[in-house]
Amino acid sequence: MTKRSALKRSTLGMINIDPLQRGGILTPEARDALAEWGDGYSICDFCPGNLEEIKKPPIHDFVHRDLPEFLGTDHARVTNGAREGIFAVMHALGEEGGCVVMDGNAHYTSLVAAERAGLDVSLIPVSDRPQYRVEPEGYGDLLEDLFGRGEKVVLALLTYPDGNYGNIVDAKRVSSICKDYDVPLLLNCAYSVGRMPVSAKELGADFIVGSGHKSMAACGPVGVLGINEPHQEAVLRKSGYHKNKEIELLGCTARGATIMTLLASFPAVRARVAEWDSEVEKARWFSTEMENLGMVQMGDKPHNHDLMFFETPVLYEISKHAKKGRFFLYKELKKRKIHGIKSGLTKYFKLSTYGLSEDDLRYVVDAFDEIISTSV
Amino acid sequence: MTKRSALKRSTLGMINIDPLQRGGILTPEARDALAEWGDGYSICDFCPGNLEEIKKPPIHDFVHRDLPEFLGTDHARVTNGAREGIFAVMHALGEEGGCVVMDGNAHYTSLVAAERAGLDVSLIPVSDRPQYRVEPEGYGDLLEDLFGRGEKVVLALLTYPDGNYGNIVDAKRVSSICKDYDVPLLLNCAYSVGRMPVSAKELGADFIVGSGHKSMAACGPVGVLGINEPHQEAVLRKSGYHKNKEIELLGCTARGATIMTLLASFPAVRARVAEWDSEVEKARWFSTEMENLGMVQMGDKPHNHDLMFFETPVLYEISKHAKKGRFFLYKELKKRKIHGIKSGLTKYFKLSTYGLSEDDLRYVVDAFDEIISTSV
Repeated sequence: MTKRSALKRSTLGMINIDPLQRGGILTPEARDALAEWGDGYSICDFCPGNLEEIKKPPIHDFVHRDLPEFLGTDHARVTNGAREGIFAVMHALGEEGGCVVMDGNAHYTSLVAAERAGLDVSLIPVSDRPQYRVEPEGYGDLLEDLFGRGEKVVLALLTYPDGNYGNIVDAKRVSSICKDYDVPLLLNCAYSVGRMPVSAKELGADFIVGSGHKSMAACGPVGVLGINEPHQEAVLRKSGYHKNKEIELLGCTARGATIMTLLASFPAVRARVAEWDSEVEKARWFSTEMENLGMVQMGDKPHNHDLMFFETPVLYEISKHAKKGRFFLYKELKKRKIHGIKSGLTKYFKLSTYGLSEDDLRYVVDAFDEIISTSV
Repeated sequence: MTKRSALKRSTLGMINIDPLQRGGILTPEARDALAEWGDGYSICDFCPGNLEEIKKPPIHDFVHRDLPEFLGTDHARVTNGAREGIFAVMHALGEEGGCVVMDGNAHYTSLVAAERAGLDVSLIPVSDRPQYRVEPEGYGDLLEDLFGRGEKVVLALLTYPDGNYGNIVDAKRVSSICKDYDVPLLLNCAYSVGRMPVSAKELGADFIVGSGHKSMAACGPVGVLGINEPHQEAVLRKSGYHKNKEIELLGCTARGATIMTLLASFPAVRARVAEWDSEVEKARWFSTEMENLGMVQMGDKPHNHDLMFFETPVLYEISKHAKKGRFFLYKELKKRKIHGIKSGLTKYFKLSTYGLSEDDLRYVVDAFDEIISTSV
């Protein structure tokens, strides 16, 4: 039997620099919503037949008014997460023997979603260390090659930014290339929607997915899916058995507390997106400070996102002689109430500065400085 | 912009007899878990690569030890809900031109899941009013017919109980018939797992799905999927791209607060299942009282479940002359702090007595009595 103490979260009260965690911290409004809507199917007290039509709580307005405007799309839906949105699109557009092209930095779930949808995957190459760049022209080269070989490309996907290096590819250029080949484009914005301004229309994308738990201050799992016309016809097609139920959403998706935290945080999330420049500034400052300590930031430089990947040879050298070996860094950070670097990593790691104050970031830099200088 | 007051739940503090709501009310332990694990991807602080392997919080033990034991299966997973579990199974077992057989009382999501998986649906007939019975032999007749016509039946599904009448079909008999035809059987136990004792092994089922938000005191959406061997090979097959990720689960499913409320409530849920007999007794008492007031319970009689469907001619007669017309019943119940009968219904409705005290049920019966006697 599970002990009750096992249900406590040990990282609460720590500075959590795990990129997964920074954008999903609940707002006070979302905490209130959790208490209010925690019970099972709470949002269905006044259900008129499907999720998006619920007026009390105001899910209808959120889905039909706020979300499309926020995402820059004609239509929007709330999903059980970014990956579920990606799968819904791939499954709807998929056809026997079809394939998907995506950036070589794509999240694993994009590949698994394609696999589940029975689609082959072709990857746009990624440049070597230290930039790990995906060039928009890579889409043109790959599409040219695939069409030349008679392949059926049903979708192109770009991870914007990717979840390893936080690199931001010129999505406008990618969408323009995809249009030339008449291939719809999906942007996986799990690390951007809710953090930085993104508009599918401005970027020329057909689909956009976002993650509530990763970047929109909502409890997991929940996501958003924006769809530009005419693709709603395929992705939101109705059931032949039940005319008001959408097949790819299995009727209703985020039917509970998850969607309510998304709604409750939305005003704050929309406001924080406008502060994106200061987040980038903090990230760049942090990157410079880390490099001054002997670590090397990979990917775009200067960086354009809070998610950053560092090679850390100085820490690796210490680990060779440290008492705890490769676990020394985790322990030293834990001692200082900093969490988010995976236990055992010393050669490289990723982290995020999102939403941390300058004081907290200075504290983290000082912690690395102290760990390095007292260990060398 | 949405007003904050719109994010309040107006039915809190009322007696909620909506069948959707009775089994999903959080335990105090689950409320604590919500506060603790509300942030986005909170459960992933110590992720070793996938959801089921997380040891802190103790998801690994829950998924690999507690849940299979509770469901009576060799393997188990946590899903985003019952429908998502049903779709995963259908999608994994599906083949071009395949079909699924299911009871005519099946929940709409079973049909939509089959549709999404590209499978045809054949329904076992339902008997006429007032019983709306599904006979186990209906499975044999239908399978005989389909196999005779060369159809490929990939799965049989039984809704146990169904969500309209709360009828419980002899699942052992159904499983024995399905075995004769070598067709795997899935039990949709959204209204039973977490309320009454159910074991897939005892009933002879290959798959069982349950709903956390409907019947396991968890916040939505979350579900459970139990799988007996050898079907885990198809349903839990791993990605060719990422060897520790399961394709049908898109890697990880209930990655957040939803799974934590499920875990936190589990000891209480396991305990309450043992009290099922007293729930049936309360339901039967309630049914008798309602019939004494001129309403007629449809479905199994005596009834074997808390979900009941009533025809209510006496209320319909009143509605013809009532000031608020067909909305009178909703208003009268609301006045008495009772929620859960859909606004506008007077001819028939379903409700649930699950988890309500005898006093509360007496209060509900008295309310109907008063509404009828003061309106006639």
